[in-house]
Amino acid sequence: MNDVIALLQAHRSIRKFKPEPVPDAQIEEIVRCGQAAATSSNIQATTIIRVRDGARREKLAELAGGQSYVASAGAFLVFCADLHRTRLACELRGGDFSSEMTEQFIIATVDVALAAQNCVVAAESLGLGICYIGGLRNNPQGVAELLELPESVYPVFGLCLGFPDQDPEIKPRLPLSAVLQEDRYQDAGARASIEGYDEKLSAYYRTRSGGTKNSTWSEEMKALGGKSRPHMREFLARRGFALK
Amino acid sequence: MNDVIALLQAHRSIRKFKPEPVPDAQIEEIVRCGQAAATSSNIQATTIIRVRDGARREKLAELAGGQSYVASAGAFLVFCADLHRTRLACELRGGDFSSEMTEQFIIATVDVALAAQNCVVAAESLGLGICYIGGLRNNPQGVAELLELPESVYPVFGLCLGFPDQDPEIKPRLPLSAVLQEDRYQDAGARASIEGYDEKLSAYYRTRSGGTKNSTWSEEMKALGGKSRPHMREFLARRGFALK
Repeated sequence: MNDVIALLQAHRSIRKFKPEPVPDAQIEEIVRCGQAAATSSNIQATTIIRVRDGARREKLAELAGGQSYVASAGAFLVFCADLHRTRLACELRGGDFSSEMTEQFIIATVDVALAAQNCVVAAESLGLGICYIGGLRNNPQGVAELLELPESVYPVFGLCLGFPDQDPEIKPRLPLSAVLQEDRYQDAGARASIEGYDEKLSAYYRTRSGGTKNSTWSEEMKALGGKSRPHMREFLARRGFALK
Repeated sequence: MNDVIALLQAHRSIRKFKPEPVPDAQIEEIVRCGQAAATSSNIQATTIIRVRDGARREKLAELAGGQSYVASAGAFLVFCADLHRTRLACELRGGDFSSEMTEQFIIATVDVALAAQNCVVAAESLGLGICYIGGLRNNPQGVAELLELPESVYPVFGLCLGFPDQDPEIKPRLPLSAVLQEDRYQDAGARASIEGYDEKLSAYYRTRSGGTKNSTWSEEMKALGGKSRPHMREFLARRGFALK
């Protein structure tokens, strides 16, 4: 195992940060790493908004469902899927661009995620901790208004970065055999692997420092059922992503 | 700049590979790195199908629009967004799970992309080259049938991996100032930055080894307009992703 692989496998989310801000030069280096990720047809559909202003940070923490570390982390980035810039480029050449097809939504969303994960790896290589904030999609319209996003731009998720002030354990994952398959999809062993993982995750929750949680993966997945953010479809349509 | 950041910034897609296969142990280590990426609410919505069978590889190369390296690369992985396993877990607890909300589609698609990018970083750290294959979405129904994907699973993209048999230059990206913004979305300088990037990319195409291409970013974006894979919406609906 080389150092890069060790770094990747040591990931855990950090939700408690030291008060020091992340230096600008580090943020820029991290974002350059994001830009270096693969991008579909070089479309580069990622725009990253670093929110520095305290009042906006507080507001974002609230919009994300009261996650205080959104306001207190050393830096907070909002990763936006951006087809507005693509449209500008087309217009410069007398062309037009519509963001309303489902495929364009996929391209832009995947582009953002690839860039973000490169940012995360770069940040962790610098000793920073991170936490993705999907909670921005709790109230994406509020986020879009706060950040003055134009049409064909939507906030996919946020990212807290900062110097860690906690040292949580690595959460166990599903067995490799469930996730890596050969030649065709096979779920003959799926139930058994879920049951095995349930035990492993339950043990993790019982023994981790300060852990009082008593749950399994399948129980958590059952509880997730309701968290479907039913406003997303209409929100996206209003932003120019009709998902046609 | 540390070694990890240097690795990330050295990325370029590889489309010509030496004939050696990628050892199984390396594929497994790479996939473990993918599993270590952040995942929304620990849903782990990624299933990776390594296609080893020669006939299936040929068929996938054809389905992807005739990309021969899909068949010839040292390894080929299909990254699937998988909410079928989530449903199985819910059923084990007497619950139900629907994959039809847009939010669930976003969660699963982002999960896959984060995992894939970790796989890519791990692969490149091992000296392998990679190329994402979005072309699997040219005929996603054909891919789904070939790989026997159940409902609530869709192929997001493929990934070629192998030992590089070419050494292409790194493609320049948009200026950092266009991609990293502060506190709110600003596009006052967008046209100027696109025009500057057009010149830079045009110079890259003229001077790269064997380069006969004469284009700019804005011209490429204009040409993209038509590539919208209009079948995606209906395909996804049939797979259980109704995007409600």
